Amino acid sequence: MDMNQIWQWTTEEFLTVSASSSPTPGGGSVSAFVGAQAASMACMVANLTIGKEKYKEVEPQVKEILSQGETVLNALKTGLSQDIAEFSNFMAVLKLPKGTDEEKAVRATKMQEVLISATDTPLGIAQNCFKVLQLAQELAPIGNKGAISDVGVAAYLAESALKSAMLSVDINLPQIKDPGYQERVKAERARLFEQAAVICAETVAVVQSRL
Amino acid sequence: MDMNQIWQWTTEEFLTVSASSSPTPGGGSVSAFVGAQAASMACMVANLTIGKEKYKEVEPQVKEILSQGETVLNALKTGLSQDIAEFSNFMAVLKLPKGTDEEKAVRATKMQEVLISATDTPLGIAQNCFKVLQLAQELAPIGNKGAISDVGVAAYLAESALKSAMLSVDINLPQIKDPGYQERVKAERARLFEQAAVICAETVAVVQSRL
Repeated sequence: MDMNQIWQWTTEEFLTVSASSSPTPGGGSVSAFVGAQAASMACMVANLTIGKEKYKEVEPQVKEILSQGETVLNALKTGLSQDIAEFSNFMAVLKLPKGTDEEKAVRATKMQEVLISATDTPLGIAQNCFKVLQLAQELAPIGNKGAISDVGVAAYLAESALKSAMLSVDINLPQIKDPGYQERVKAERARLFEQAAVICAETVAVVQSRL
Repeated sequence: MDMNQIWQWTTEEFLTVSASSSPTPGGGSVSAFVGAQAASMACMVANLTIGKEKYKEVEPQVKEILSQGETVLNALKTGLSQDIAEFSNFMAVLKLPKGTDEEKAVRATKMQEVLISATDTPLGIAQNCFKVLQLAQELAPIGNKGAISDVGVAAYLAESALKSAMLSVDINLPQIKDPGYQERVKAERARLFEQAAVICAETVAVVQSRL
């Protein structure tokens, strides 16, 4: 299977290749895809709200949620493709020669670059999942009551995709020799975990009250 | 798009149709698909463990996990197709005539049948997501260390897919006029939520200790 054509794979092929011993798509990619599915549920509820007489008053707000939902869905699709690219970049660096001191130095520098990139990518996926959570929170009290459970689905899936993507951050971060970078990422990780749990619980509570 | 051909849709089409105002695939279907992706991650780690000298001792156990993982992945694929079928069955009953008392009685009986079926299906999806969680828990201490984060991904995604699928149960259950059925489903719902949270937390803790 051509990893660059992943959006042309069938849903069945996606599951089959994910389940196989092929290292890609791995957890980071699947997290991005689940985040995109969460975004798609928020977009669906927005689409089922817009144009309905009963929800005319909130229509401008819901249109804005839809627009942002589409943007974040596309960002998560890009995140999946990046996650796959990170893996081949990492493999390429692993294969660099390490015979001479100069080669070792070049390899070490490239390794740090690729580790930072392979941390930034899942962190970006997690940040986009957080945006999906914020959209679900905004939509929960105003979205079409007939489809409101799917806003709960968006919240649950976005939160777990955020945490799943962060596992890739956890793998790479300890190997990055830049204390400032480590601190910044750890702080952002803690912030996202904490706020995501609060937003998810609040959103589901609003959804349950409107079922 | 032909809903019966959903496994032949491209990943891109799946996201596009999910995000559209088409009511299917909705939250139940997406939950089943995410559960299947969680299962695929457990299968991938099992596949990356089997055949490796370092993990020879646990190979029989991991082969059993893989076999069960493949079974539950297929069950979740079937669950998605069922979830889509439930929606058209429900719509068909909604369209039944309700002019005479006899028509009303037939319609009410059919409605109860379709509501029970539309509750059993997402409950079955949730139960299969729970099986994925149990497989992730078993794999966490023995799976290939180099891919162990993906067992954490499996656990996070399976738990959220379980909770997402249960939202469809929450919608339909109050309308089912069978107190015994309601009691049984509520008890199973509570059991799954409680145990899933414990297993997910334990599994992620083991994964974090092996990163």
